[in-house]
Amino acid sequence: MDIYFDNSATTILDADVQKVMDDFNNKFYANPSAMHRFGYLAEEEVKKCSEYIASIINCDSSEIIWTSGGSESNNLAISGYIEAHKKSGNRIITTSIEHPSVYNVFKKYEDLGFDVIYLDVDGRGQINLDKLKDSINDSTILVSIMFVNNEIGSRQRIEEIGDIIKSKNKNCAFHVDFVQGFTKYKIDVKKSNIDFLSVSSHKINGPKGVGFLYRNKNARIIPMILGGNQQQGLRAGTLNTTGIIGTYMATKIAYENFETVISGLKNLKNYLIDELSKINDKYGIITINTLKDESFAPHIVSISFKGIRAEVMLHSLEGYGIYVSAGSACSSHNKNISNTLKSIGLKPEIAESTIRVSFGKYNNKQEIDTFINTLDILIPKLVLKR
Amino acid sequence: MDIYFDNSATTILDADVQKVMDDFNNKFYANPSAMHRFGYLAEEEVKKCSEYIASIINCDSSEIIWTSGGSESNNLAISGYIEAHKKSGNRIITTSIEHPSVYNVFKKYEDLGFDVIYLDVDGRGQINLDKLKDSINDSTILVSIMFVNNEIGSRQRIEEIGDIIKSKNKNCAFHVDFVQGFTKYKIDVKKSNIDFLSVSSHKINGPKGVGFLYRNKNARIIPMILGGNQQQGLRAGTLNTTGIIGTYMATKIAYENFETVISGLKNLKNYLIDELSKINDKYGIITINTLKDESFAPHIVSISFKGIRAEVMLHSLEGYGIYVSAGSACSSHNKNISNTLKSIGLKPEIAESTIRVSFGKYNNKQEIDTFINTLDILIPKLVLKR
Repeated sequence: MDIYFDNSATTILDADVQKVMDDFNNKFYANPSAMHRFGYLAEEEVKKCSEYIASIINCDSSEIIWTSGGSESNNLAISGYIEAHKKSGNRIITTSIEHPSVYNVFKKYEDLGFDVIYLDVDGRGQINLDKLKDSINDSTILVSIMFVNNEIGSRQRIEEIGDIIKSKNKNCAFHVDFVQGFTKYKIDVKKSNIDFLSVSSHKINGPKGVGFLYRNKNARIIPMILGGNQQQGLRAGTLNTTGIIGTYMATKIAYENFETVISGLKNLKNYLIDELSKINDKYGIITINTLKDESFAPHIVSISFKGIRAEVMLHSLEGYGIYVSAGSACSSHNKNISNTLKSIGLKPEIAESTIRVSFGKYNNKQEIDTFINTLDILIPKLVLKR
Repeated sequence: MDIYFDNSATTILDADVQKVMDDFNNKFYANPSAMHRFGYLAEEEVKKCSEYIASIINCDSSEIIWTSGGSESNNLAISGYIEAHKKSGNRIITTSIEHPSVYNVFKKYEDLGFDVIYLDVDGRGQINLDKLKDSINDSTILVSIMFVNNEIGSRQRIEEIGDIIKSKNKNCAFHVDFVQGFTKYKIDVKKSNIDFLSVSSHKINGPKGVGFLYRNKNARIIPMILGGNQQQGLRAGTLNTTGIIGTYMATKIAYENFETVISGLKNLKNYLIDELSKINDKYGIITINTLKDESFAPHIVSISFKGIRAEVMLHSLEGYGIYVSAGSACSSHNKNISNTLKSIGLKPEIAESTIRVSFGKYNNKQEIDTFINTLDILIPKLVLKR
């Protein structure tokens, strides 16, 4: 049996979600924009999904914009808000450890002349809240800070951050990339002063190609995809009704099993960290970049093996049917060292020797035992090989 | 049994396509950008799909960009190309009968100061090729012309148009919105001098939320969604692998049954037009805005009922389980009179009394008989009602 430890990259579609989507395809396939009853029924289904999502993050259903996924949501929030407010100010703030779909949008606006602040993080992947406070001035229009980092799992104190932003400049919008945090943490967008929240479905055992953006209805944006008047004109294109139903169902399953799944993930994470420490007594080459404490997410463990390049470890593990990701790259097409690992202070040779294990609800303790046993076979071989 | 005559709005997902997608979800759920073998297998599946699509439209697989659907494809082609070439010229050309996802992008650039030409159409929905020729000058960077109009089914002479564009200005790019034409017509993008071709999957019995853009590899674009390096950096976001497989399968089924399905659709269309003419001998209020000849697509029939508002007819038909669309609006949220119907010269009161019947491969002659019989019941009632 293969061991899939790459759940932060994507997850398997839940059988129950698939079933709901398949049924929906047969029953409600009309275009929800169609004027006839059959279209109306599809539209009602979408509305039900929006209302459910709105209820769990505490917003209005009109504040949910369905998108093609996390990257589009991040782009739409950031570009959309900046384009609508570029005359109000020139400063935009983010962190040095954002996902490329945030980071590259900031880079674009930096090239266009915006004053961009990239907040550093400490060795635990935490931004400094005083520095954030100092960075926000009257010309700051947007702050974008991710909830859970996708490489090491560090978690920012979003509620405090929201307070700081609004107390320094109440007109400054706050965007949160919640892609790795959704269904791992409950969130109240109003309480946390969040204006934009990005979510992707395929990270939570839902379908690929769909996600949503929560947008505070007072935060004006310029749409990215123009066309029909779907979604109040904010995102044109026939609604991906089946994907939306899938997102709804995946979210519902996650929320109904929230405590059980999260405590299960925490146990796996703590067990892995403990077992890695034990095995490291023998080899002394392992550094764990993720801590057990609450400032890190329950499902991500970043591990460096000094002297063993991440690709080598990754491909060796896959030889045993164990799938992890190379901690320094989100994608096989990106050969640069990750900003995150650099930002937490890892030396290049350590960053290049870092893998990420990310758990999902279908993982179990036995898989970790197999993983540890496999490392015990691989490490001596791979260290020797050098 | 309900009669679904709204296939140009969207189509039912084929059972065979669904099956392939369901199997794929279980077998190849990894992120195709992942570095491990499991990711590689998913990537290979996507590649297979791109290669198949490329083979049927005669391009290279690297020229296929997967998107969230037709609207995104249209936006990416037009905005993406204009943003990359705005220093090369100021004129852009389109028609007065484009889909909103083309038209509204041109409007945006018109507001930004571009010299936009909207080519008129005649009563048959055809642009004048001489006028097109005269409109193209040295500063023209882009021409966007749809293949099949979504409201009346009129078809432009794309191959001739491609010749004209390139002979007048070889640097001018040619975009074709092929959303209503794909699998109804075979196309050779190289032979037709097409640089961009937009396609949506849910119009061909494939899944919603996915489509593609063919882009001539020499036609530089600025990406719309930034992030990871997926798709050569031209469209970030985790690939919707399942949707891509679904698109591939839906296309394959359509191409394998091409002649049979198209001749079936033509028969339905001709039969409907004949039967409408017959019934009109009795009522004298019907105008058919679609002709039987080859300058119109095989699956769309636009019908005006003088004195009966489209919404009234649409809702009356739905009372009998027959679903059509109001010809003057693509969407229930758009209350304006359609540009297309205005452009072909319909008076406002006729345009507002226009419905669209659009066939799919699952429709049959008996459904048309039922439709005609229903009209025979409804027309006297609805005309009287006024």
